[in-house]
Amino acid sequence: MVSTDTTGLSWSLIQEARTRIVGRVNRTPVLTSGTLDTQAGARLYFKCENFQKAGAFKARGATNAVFSLSESEARHGVATHSSGNHAAALARAAKLRGIPAHIVMPDNAPQTKRASVTRYGGRIVFCESTLQARESTVARVIADTGAVLVHPYNDLRVMAGQATTGVELMEAIPELDLIVCPVGGGGLLSGIAVAAKTMKPAVRVIGVEPAGADDAARSFKAGQIIPSVNPRTIADGLRSSLGEKPFAEIRRYVDDIVTVSDEAIVQAMRLIWEVMKIIVEPSGAVPYAAIIEERLAVRQRQVALVLTGGNLDLDRLPFSGG
Amino acid sequence: MVSTDTTGLSWSLIQEARTRIVGRVNRTPVLTSGTLDTQAGARLYFKCENFQKAGAFKARGATNAVFSLSESEARHGVATHSSGNHAAALARAAKLRGIPAHIVMPDNAPQTKRASVTRYGGRIVFCESTLQARESTVARVIADTGAVLVHPYNDLRVMAGQATTGVELMEAIPELDLIVCPVGGGGLLSGIAVAAKTMKPAVRVIGVEPAGADDAARSFKAGQIIPSVNPRTIADGLRSSLGEKPFAEIRRYVDDIVTVSDEAIVQAMRLIWEVMKIIVEPSGAVPYAAIIEERLAVRQRQVALVLTGGNLDLDRLPFSGG
Repeated sequence: MVSTDTTGLSWSLIQEARTRIVGRVNRTPVLTSGTLDTQAGARLYFKCENFQKAGAFKARGATNAVFSLSESEARHGVATHSSGNHAAALARAAKLRGIPAHIVMPDNAPQTKRASVTRYGGRIVFCESTLQARESTVARVIADTGAVLVHPYNDLRVMAGQATTGVELMEAIPELDLIVCPVGGGGLLSGIAVAAKTMKPAVRVIGVEPAGADDAARSFKAGQIIPSVNPRTIADGLRSSLGEKPFAEIRRYVDDIVTVSDEAIVQAMRLIWEVMKIIVEPSGAVPYAAIIEERLAVRQRQVALVLTGGNLDLDRLPFSGG
Repeated sequence: MVSTDTTGLSWSLIQEARTRIVGRVNRTPVLTSGTLDTQAGARLYFKCENFQKAGAFKARGATNAVFSLSESEARHGVATHSSGNHAAALARAAKLRGIPAHIVMPDNAPQTKRASVTRYGGRIVFCESTLQARESTVARVIADTGAVLVHPYNDLRVMAGQATTGVELMEAIPELDLIVCPVGGGGLLSGIAVAAKTMKPAVRVIGVEPAGADDAARSFKAGQIIPSVNPRTIADGLRSSLGEKPFAEIRRYVDDIVTVSDEAIVQAMRLIWEVMKIIVEPSGAVPYAAIIEERLAVRQRQVALVLTGGNLDLDRLPFSGG
């Protein structure tokens, strides 16, 4: 049974998140592919968070966090530092609630990332592209505005929101043997692990990480957080360092974390595009990359793969030209 | 009411097709997008034939044709000339039935087109890339093998199969005001028009064609077939000339045929990829291009757009690089 320790991610927080986000985010479909099943020798279920609001699972956690705030907490808005999917998700959730969102992002963030925040009415605050600059800038924004910080993953409200992905998966496919999920900061993996193992203790949950950003795999083996140093991977959503709060759950509930090469990530992404005719970003293709590189025992099993998002710059695709 | 003239596409042929192809092709989903609805000022329903078997609606007609054959007719297989989606669809249908498929294609056909035929066990016969060479080669193949010709569109069995797309649409969304469908040879448009108007005479059916391959639009206005000469468009599935059998139905049941620019086709394709996170080929983006260029009165209407296919070479995408 999952602990009821109030300092961790409890089942009641997940249930509250679920009620809170219904109608504000999508219950995403689960797709299957006979072709990919045959290649894997398994029954694969693709949880399509690329069809989620704002194009990624991040809408779940951000929406739960924003709607968890009391009226007085919410009054001055929310803030975060992110140039990725969490930024757009938080801007969207804030817009739904009618409060400001202050998004700190590096001044070299690509135009597509800026556009996805401004589309939802988020206010962008630029800073230099160092972690230190980001953190000091968000601290200043909070001091100036009174906004509430919503961290991309090291936040129980965010983790509880992401956990609803696991609840939906177990409800849709109770016979699941294994859930395979990308890991960056760990918000999604920890949430899914707590949710799925509460609902079905026998299910296995495995994280997959790019080999060039393998701090979660190393931390998992070491039993303590080993921060990411100079991560290099095409999976831009997975370059962040594992958070402490997610790690506490991952240590208890996750069965393993494996790594994959960037070549396999690109190959997996292309295969999903070509066979399934759906757009998945590099980070979302990471679970299938683990199947390509045979890092998982999936034969004859019922396996869920979380396609975490579908946001990428179509002008800069990693396919060879010709 | 639709005529029961046995020389045309009758409702009973469509019903027979439907029964014949169930379980052999997909009943494809209908997707919606709040973002695209807002842009169009209409309620849009995207019929996802890009998720069809072999990646395009062509699986419907080819499967109906192949399974319409008697045992003695089928014995020596089927033949066609096509380098596109019909080729792969026919190879797949023949494989399902366990008979040979002889596919005549020009020797300059891209590798991806060849691969999609050989994947399904089709036998490729190469010829020069002129219409004359294709027709004489397929005639020789038929003389040599005894195979039955399955034309890509000028064939009632094929048209009846494609018509099932319209049946599914009207069943899924009875309140439809308008169906918008690409037109190349006319097999799909004619089939959908007969099916939809039989089920709901008030529904409007409009074909959309690239301006650089506008023989169907010109033929529709002239009341007689004006063959395509040197068609130029990125929508490779729509370069073929309108067939006589489809045209007979299109004249009677289609309300209008409009044209769109290639620029709008690329823009529509990109928008569908980015917003809906699904892969649609240029030909399949043509209906949305007509909305972008305001060629249709869609405001406040319930409008179905047929996303006809999702097959294209990911190494040669028409997006500007940078």
